[in-house]
Order: sequence, then C-alpha cells, then structure tokens
Amino acid sequence: MSQKLSIPEVNALGYEEFIDRFGGAVEHGRLVAAAAWSARPFLSASDLHFRFCEFLDQLSQAGKEAVLRMYPDLAGKLANSGGLTEESVREHKAAGLDSLSADEHRTLSELNEAYKTKFGFPFVICARENKKDAIIQGLKRRMENDVRTEAVTGVNEVKKICHLRLQDLAEDSTSKM
Amino acid sequence: MSQKLSIPEVNALGYEEFIDRFGGAVEHGRLVAAAAWSARPFLSASDLHFRFCEFLDQLSQAGKEAVLRMYPDLAGKLANSGGLTEESVREHKAAGLDSLSADEHRTLSELNEAYKTKFGFPFVICARENKKDAIIQGLKRRMENDVRTEAVTGVNEVKKICHLRLQDLAEDSTSKM
Repeated sequence: MSQKLSIPEVNALGYEEFIDRFGGAVEHGRLVAAAAWSARPFLSASDLHFRFCEFLDQLSQAGKEAVLRMYPDLAGKLANSGGLTEESVREHKAAGLDSLSADEHRTLSELNEAYKTKFGFPFVICARENKKDAIIQGLKRRMENDVRTEAVTGVNEVKKICHLRLQDLAEDSTSKM
Repeated sequence: MSQKLSIPEVNALGYEEFIDRFGGAVEHGRLVAAAAWSARPFLSASDLHFRFCEFLDQLSQAGKEAVLRMYPDLAGKLANSGGLTEESVREHKAAGLDSLSADEHRTLSELNEAYKTKFGFPFVICARENKKDAIIQGLKRRMENDVRTEAVTGVNEVKKICHLRLQDLAEDSTSKM
C-alpha cells in the first residue's frame, strides 16, 4: 500500500489522483469519492470521512441498497475465487474469515444466502471490528430487521469500513509518517 | 455490441449479468444500475430508464456533481489517448467530434477548461443529439448558469445519454430483434 498522506497533501491532489487513492474507500465507490471531492479543501481526516458519510446518508433507499450490493459476500464465491478487492482481502483476514472450518463456512454461506433472499442485498459488516463468531451472531440478529432498517444498518457498517480504510490512506498530522 | 434484450429477458437476468450489461448506461455507473435493480421487475423499457433517472434525481448536489465527473471532456485528453469507454467513442463520432479542425479543437478545449474551472465538473451534453456547432454554442450558453442549475442541466443530459444507451441494450417488444 502507498504511504499515508497528510490532509494538506490530500487537498493538493488532482482529481484523478484523488479518485485513484480514495475510490475504494467505499467498495467500487468512485462515485462516492467524486462526491466528496466537491467539499475540498478538507479540514481534517474526520472531515474527509464525514463527506463520504454525507453522500451515503443522502441516498434514497434504492441507492443505499445499491451501495451494499457493491460489497462481496463474506467468505463467499468471490473470496473463494480470488476476486476480492485488496481492501476486502485484508478485512476478511482480520476477522479470521480466511481460516473457517468447513462447518463454519457452511453456516456462514447458508446465513448469507438467507439474508440475501430476504433483503435483496448482501450482509455487510465491518469485519475488522468483528471476529467470525460475532459476524455469525450479527447475521442471525440482523435477519430480524425490516428492509429499511437493515439498509441503514448496512450503510452504517459501510461507514465504519470506510473510516478504517481512510485511516490507512490519510492522517491528521501535517507530515507523512 | 451484444444483442438487444426484451424486457422479460432483462427481468430474468441475474444481478451480475444485469450490472455487466447496464453498468455503463450511466458512465462508470455500476452504482446507478445497482440502484435500478431494486425496482425489478421492470414493466417496460421506459420503466427501466425511469429507475435510472429516479436515482439521479434523488442525488444531493455533490452527488449530481459526482455523476458529471464520471464523464470525459468532449474531445479532451481521454479521447486523444484512446481512453474513452466504447459508448463514448460512438457518441463522440455521432456528433462529429472525431473530425474537428485544429481551430475547432482548440475552441472546444478552451471552453471545456473554462467550464470546468467555473463549475468544478466537466461539461456534459448528449452528443448523439447535437452536432459539434450546437455543442460549442451550448457550452457558451450554459457557462452563464449558476452551479446548481448547471448540475441539474448536466444530469438531464446524462439521462438523455442513458436513454439512448438503454435503447441499444433493451427494447419493449417481447422477442429479440
């Protein structure tokens, strides 16, 4: 991964460089980064994150569902076939999802499928803040939600994932690490 | 380009197939297609287009600006370097933008730059509905707008472009052409 930038350095980026760097803070999220671009200059790393959140919060229900559809199933087909984004690979690993037993893998797959059948979008949770057991419990619990609550819940997890990804890319100090 | 689908065929697509086919109806617009996906089954080709428009209309000002930033400058750097999407290449050609004189090219480049400096996003116009002279006149005229009016005007052009791109991909009749 490239070196972290300070906020003045982020503010000095050209548009294409900004999108290259931050277009994956939300999965396949060039549009989200392009919306955040409107708010430059950013005052701080928190302000940068806030602009991503602002775009997400203002989306319609279908828009929130669309954001969730950009994420891979946890330990799903894409992970098995090596098709995850670099960010997702690290996050899966942090949660222990790269070392599931056959039983755990089957449980997670079945719950994911049931969730997608009910809601029409995949289950999204901040894997770096949850271990595999907490993820399986979260899936069971959130399955009880209605679709509007669950879209908001999922997007809140997207914001947490985005926050951690941004922390890897930019920081508040005025010089590089 | 692949064969047109009827609306029942569109409704029978899986999610990934749908995104592969319609993710470029709005430039780099996987998220827009993923939002339209929420409204399945589509009643008609118009209904399909309406769902793309619905997402665009519900975007915040920054979101609308972000959509416009997904489009290349007309006859700009990307066109010169062969970096346009397949759709954009055809649209540039339809407007005669692939055969500008040196003077026309300079005029268009200068106007594009002035527009981007004023608004912070590129000038978007439905090239298949305009020839090069009309595009240059449109640029001059729209430069007088304020930024909110111009974001809405630009997004209305995005909807026209999307409409024509969708017509190439799906049709109302119940059988393939």
